[in-house]
Amino acid sequence: MQTATIITIGDELLIGQVVDTNSAYMAVRLNEQGVSVKEILSVHDEREAIVSALERAISQSEIVLLTGGLGPTKDDITKHVLCEFFSTYLVENKQVEAHVRDLYKNRPEVLNRLTATQWQVPAAAQIIENKIGSAPIMLFRREGTTIVSMPGVPEEMRCAMDTLIAEEYLADTASKAFILHRTLRVAGIPESALAILIEQWETNLPKNLHLAYLPQYRTIRLRLSGTGNELDSLTHQLDTEFQTLQSLVSEYVVAQTGEPLEVVLGSYLKAHNMTVASAESCTGGKVASLLNKHAGSSAFYKGSVVAYSNEVKEQVLGVCKTDLEQYGAVSEQVVGQMAKGVIKVLQTDCAIATSGIAGPDGGTKEKPVGTVWIAVAKKTADSVGSLTADAEGISVYTECLHLRGDREAITDNASAIAILRLLQWLEK
Amino acid sequence: MQTATIITIGDELLIGQVVDTNSAYMAVRLNEQGVSVKEILSVHDEREAIVSALERAISQSEIVLLTGGLGPTKDDITKHVLCEFFSTYLVENKQVEAHVRDLYKNRPEVLNRLTATQWQVPAAAQIIENKIGSAPIMLFRREGTTIVSMPGVPEEMRCAMDTLIAEEYLADTASKAFILHRTLRVAGIPESALAILIEQWETNLPKNLHLAYLPQYRTIRLRLSGTGNELDSLTHQLDTEFQTLQSLVSEYVVAQTGEPLEVVLGSYLKAHNMTVASAESCTGGKVASLLNKHAGSSAFYKGSVVAYSNEVKEQVLGVCKTDLEQYGAVSEQVVGQMAKGVIKVLQTDCAIATSGIAGPDGGTKEKPVGTVWIAVAKKTADSVGSLTADAEGISVYTECLHLRGDREAITDNASAIAILRLLQWLEK
Repeated sequence: MQTATIITIGDELLIGQVVDTNSAYMAVRLNEQGVSVKEILSVHDEREAIVSALERAISQSEIVLLTGGLGPTKDDITKHVLCEFFSTYLVENKQVEAHVRDLYKNRPEVLNRLTATQWQVPAAAQIIENKIGSAPIMLFRREGTTIVSMPGVPEEMRCAMDTLIAEEYLADTASKAFILHRTLRVAGIPESALAILIEQWETNLPKNLHLAYLPQYRTIRLRLSGTGNELDSLTHQLDTEFQTLQSLVSEYVVAQTGEPLEVVLGSYLKAHNMTVASAESCTGGKVASLLNKHAGSSAFYKGSVVAYSNEVKEQVLGVCKTDLEQYGAVSEQVVGQMAKGVIKVLQTDCAIATSGIAGPDGGTKEKPVGTVWIAVAKKTADSVGSLTADAEGISVYTECLHLRGDREAITDNASAIAILRLLQWLEK
Repeated sequence: MQTATIITIGDELLIGQVVDTNSAYMAVRLNEQGVSVKEILSVHDEREAIVSALERAISQSEIVLLTGGLGPTKDDITKHVLCEFFSTYLVENKQVEAHVRDLYKNRPEVLNRLTATQWQVPAAAQIIENKIGSAPIMLFRREGTTIVSMPGVPEEMRCAMDTLIAEEYLADTASKAFILHRTLRVAGIPESALAILIEQWETNLPKNLHLAYLPQYRTIRLRLSGTGNELDSLTHQLDTEFQTLQSLVSEYVVAQTGEPLEVVLGSYLKAHNMTVASAESCTGGKVASLLNKHAGSSAFYKGSVVAYSNEVKEQVLGVCKTDLEQYGAVSEQVVGQMAKGVIKVLQTDCAIATSGIAGPDGGTKEKPVGTVWIAVAKKTADSVGSLTADAEGISVYTECLHLRGDREAITDNASAIAILRLLQWLEK
């Protein structure tokens, strides 16, 4: 099987000013091509660091993808280091020049002498067009390894990967291999208990299959990965074992996929022709962002009210003022009314509501930071489980979460768990 | 100066299922301690991969931080590899046992034989308590290098870093060095033109200072970094050069810091005792999420209406139905009414609104994917620039953005640029 090493270049990654999101995207796309990523290295914009990473990468992989350091300013040195590494020199490239001139045709102030360096490219490199930016993609070959340098701007890198794959620059028909993954999401069982439950099956898995446990937001994703040279037999083998896994853990399954919970919820809502809204206090729009993050969300998502202040809870969502005063904003009473309120105001079939203390301030002894009330509600003619619809035909489920971690962790967990609870309730 | 290498362990990172956000956090915390991060390596849960990364890290750094692979399941092997690498063996640790038993005292189902492996620790390791999780922090020393293994769960890693720093496990008084950064954010000038403007100053910078250009959302962050052994003289030197930089680019400065734009806006609003809201269509809650992401947002942020469907735009925000029909949802008329509407509904001093086509579907020839109308509005008694307040005392600024990239890039850029425009307008 072909392996790849990813090298991301930029001081900003090493001082923590920027999170490297590029590597994950490249890894997914490489896996789709049957290429396994062996290692990801992030290094400074420094000659020695880049050279050392390149040497390591070339010694261990057939594909090396580099991102970053291709801008027109002094701190960007990748192109010069590549010239030195491949013993080549810069030449002007007319096609890149024409592309850059076209890109900035309405912004003549950009076409200065520094921007002009963008069409100077290493003579030894194969040049591939960067459709949405000025720094071209550069491809080199050495000792059976393909080395590709791409821009670090995430959307330009994503576009470059699309081009590299569509035009088969990374294809290697000689050693064609396949990497397949199947993921299942379970909830309601601790990771260790789950491992004991499936221990015998896991121990007897064939050598080319591998199980991983990925706990996330009170669920665990079980990922079964397989590698092989023959697509049909690998698919059959993997699917057979995956079915066994599903049957072993069936009572805990919340999704037959590892896709984000909001995607699973979205698919359910679309299939059942239902709409959703959110009413958020402590999560502050995070649930909304998740619900419409993915293409096609307009089919089921109508909108949200982020009711951060009590005034908004009262005036827009119709939360009862005396309940706000008596129980506080972080209470079962208020979060339930928020969920019902947003169903009425935005006229949806179901809703998610949150109200809690995300911290770092605002905690009390009774309601410490991490206390989050969540509610899910739906319009219903019939009673559901132990819940019966009220006079307005809306049923509500509420739960108090006690979350650990910082503001970000509390917001992310509360949002995901609220989405999980609506999904579980609907699936019942 | 001490250097560190970060090793993040987990197949999920190498297949792109999870983005490595841990490294950036560790890098920031290490920099605060005067430790420079030389390299970040992400490797599989495989013996050879972990050993190879460890050897490289120890050969090049005084500090090695590892995260991941410490769970109780079969796929987590870090502890066993460390035992082998440091020629040691596992022993039961009573303190860790007591901690784990306490952690799960209300969840007896977790205390099974797999969870019990969490209190088996390498005999040669110094054990440090993981305050919020079951896998302890393990510290080893070899050939002048300190090696620390931490859990990969982000909030547990953050908590572990806090402990390591507070209890001075990473301190090295012998080679005390300082790394300082100053960042400035500018807008309205291309990166290349900016580089030409400050070229002479940048060329003459002392060797221990270094400038980086970080374009983001139509702004450029200029980061001046310096290293030195004497805090006072380094601070003075860096601040002097930073002041020169500020004066050279003064007309383009939008913030004297590299903090996220929403933080800068939040500080302005807090200082001026103003409140803000957002009315969002295509950004779907992203602006809201940004505005309340950081601690203390309740001082200026009241709430948002995510009006994804036209019904919500009309019924909640009071957008004129005929304008929606005549101009479409993605129009100057509609986005302006959304901004005004949310000021009235949520009773704030200013607001941000967005309406656009984030894609991948929904584009037309006249309004292709990436077309986003943004509006910022504020209550005002007096006219501002060429804008005069309407009868309701609200002034509105609108702009049509033509953004490149995918759904995520369009959402992120539109949100950030809208926040930037409100900030620029208020600062005028």
